[in-house]
Amino acid sequence: MKGFEDTEFAARTERAQRLMSEHGLSALLLTTEPEVRYFTGYLTRFWESPTRPWFLIVPASGRPIAVIPSIGAALMGQTWIDDIRTWSSPDLSDDGINLLADTLREVTQPGSRIGLPDGHETHIRMPLADLYRLKQLADDRVFAGDAGILRRLRMVKSESEIAKIEAACTIAGRAFARVPEIAGAGVTVASVFRHFQMLCLEEGADWVPYLAGGAEQGGYADVISPARDTAIAPGDVLMLDTGLVWDGYFCDYDRNWSIGPATADVKSAYATLIEATDAAFEVARAGARACDLYQAMNSVLSRQSGDTGAGRLGHGLGMSLTEWPSLIPGDETVLEAGMVLTLEPGIAVGDKILVHEENIVITEDAPRFISPKSGTELNEI
Amino acid sequence: MKGFEDTEFAARTERAQRLMSEHGLSALLLTTEPEVRYFTGYLTRFWESPTRPWFLIVPASGRPIAVIPSIGAALMGQTWIDDIRTWSSPDLSDDGINLLADTLREVTQPGSRIGLPDGHETHIRMPLADLYRLKQLADDRVFAGDAGILRRLRMVKSESEIAKIEAACTIAGRAFARVPEIAGAGVTVASVFRHFQMLCLEEGADWVPYLAGGAEQGGYADVISPARDTAIAPGDVLMLDTGLVWDGYFCDYDRNWSIGPATADVKSAYATLIEATDAAFEVARAGARACDLYQAMNSVLSRQSGDTGAGRLGHGLGMSLTEWPSLIPGDETVLEAGMVLTLEPGIAVGDKILVHEENIVITEDAPRFISPKSGTELNEI
Repeated sequence: MKGFEDTEFAARTERAQRLMSEHGLSALLLTTEPEVRYFTGYLTRFWESPTRPWFLIVPASGRPIAVIPSIGAALMGQTWIDDIRTWSSPDLSDDGINLLADTLREVTQPGSRIGLPDGHETHIRMPLADLYRLKQLADDRVFAGDAGILRRLRMVKSESEIAKIEAACTIAGRAFARVPEIAGAGVTVASVFRHFQMLCLEEGADWVPYLAGGAEQGGYADVISPARDTAIAPGDVLMLDTGLVWDGYFCDYDRNWSIGPATADVKSAYATLIEATDAAFEVARAGARACDLYQAMNSVLSRQSGDTGAGRLGHGLGMSLTEWPSLIPGDETVLEAGMVLTLEPGIAVGDKILVHEENIVITEDAPRFISPKSGTELNEI
Repeated sequence: MKGFEDTEFAARTERAQRLMSEHGLSALLLTTEPEVRYFTGYLTRFWESPTRPWFLIVPASGRPIAVIPSIGAALMGQTWIDDIRTWSSPDLSDDGINLLADTLREVTQPGSRIGLPDGHETHIRMPLADLYRLKQLADDRVFAGDAGILRRLRMVKSESEIAKIEAACTIAGRAFARVPEIAGAGVTVASVFRHFQMLCLEEGADWVPYLAGGAEQGGYADVISPARDTAIAPGDVLMLDTGLVWDGYFCDYDRNWSIGPATADVKSAYATLIEATDAAFEVARAGARACDLYQAMNSVLSRQSGDTGAGRLGHGLGMSLTEWPSLIPGDETVLEAGMVLTLEPGIAVGDKILVHEENIVITEDAPRFISPKSGTELNEI
């Protein structure tokens, strides 16, 4: 099923309001795509346009209130939101700020605290000058952080959300399985990128917001490069890492192929990556911490390799390609059933790197792979 | 040619530094994808991940300085930037803020002003709490706006930039021409969206960040909706609006098709849209203002229709799907040769709307269509 029942949005809102009450917040003010969508179901690719700000207010009780450009009124009107206030945007003299301030005044008392997400992995999607102006217009209210409420809510997925992420993973799995149709020695990386995106769409992706990868001798220099017009050669390791979307939810995992037979070093490094993935999977239980998964992988990887520069060995995913938590030594987030994570060990092989990535879901019991788990042997094309 | 010569980035940087000097700014601090790419050429889809902040400092003289997560070091090292400072991100205790503050201190004097883009169509892509922390760490510097410098620079494109936008337009034109292969009565809108993205890729798009549209009887409810699983029916008007990317530059235009014969009202409305486009094209000369193009279109449209809610009748485009200026009554931006604009008139037909969009470039003389100009008759499938 596409979309969600309204009850899901009501439950999310109630959970937020309970936490707001605990933290003394009279409202949340949200400005980014996943934040607005989380409470409304408002799904559009129009966020690609950076021109217009969009605002959602979660009041202390009742449904969220949308304060948005008129161009979004029809689509927002199809969601469960019933209080939609619009202005004709863009407006160079006042792009919704007075309307927003008036609405905040209406739903909060003077002296009350309004929470804006301000922590790690967040930003405020509105012009900075307008944020300052808003603070002046509503200076009888205090603008505070959101006390991590959005992080806490979004990090634990509902069954419906997990089903959508799993659908995205399944689609990507079918596309990855067809890579030998489009890749091989003599084909440019750019061609592979282009055709792989077509495969993702053909297999059912709504769109393909993310694709990175590379193909160089015995590995690649990084995992974030765009396509290049260089031809793939025997001895290259081709890697494709995709975040495709199905009904607003991402998968995020990669696959590697050796072009012709791999060297012993590459084979061994790849086997180590799978071993590291398995080690993290073993400890990925509710109650374990994000850093425990990091340590499980790192204890395998550090037998063979130094730092790849990636900065972490996995992360959350869902409405965004990457989300909290991070699999790093310093992230002590306790895992809960419903969290969806990538396990993404990387290893240096000479002056190149290899990275492997799978997606798992944390349950009350053993975790579950939602990407089709790779075997220990590197595939060959 | 993909990419740019280093001289292009040097010229952009020098222009910025001249304007910074005029406005008393000792450095610019940039945080978003197009801002960082504008001065570096750093092209990656990794910005899809909201986790890590990225910083670029444009000092008063010399090349920009990148302060970025280590995962980006290899790719940034391939650009003309030679001062690349990295930290292992994500770091929950200090995600680059001390490194950034130290670097800003190194390249500016106490009491000097550092410009952050803060105006319309901008935002700061870093956690708000980190921005406040940065201000405290560097409180012997003043954080000010960027005096519109990024807007002014990016709004006027170089010949190389225009060539890339034109390449994107040409690719989209080939894909639009093939829509009759994939659309027709009985086909779902979702299927058309999926296959249209495949056509864009097949015709040469690097990726397809934006696609919106719809198909309803005699028009559509809005222009920003995602795909739906409803089947197209005779009497529908199918609209597809795409922003595909070639080498980091967007096109942004739409096409409409009548499924079977169109009604007289729809035909007439469509002809009016083309007439409005032509009216704006006639006045789109260097020296004219953005609002003049709005008025030229609106004087045609208002004969027949009220407000569609879109908020404007066109806009700039380039590294982003939409950019300054806006074709609205209140935008008095004076057009200059090198600006690339969409002309995007919309019209109400009963309770539906129709929108037409073309892309043009402003020159020293007559403007030029870079999307393949539509005829006055609505195409039929």
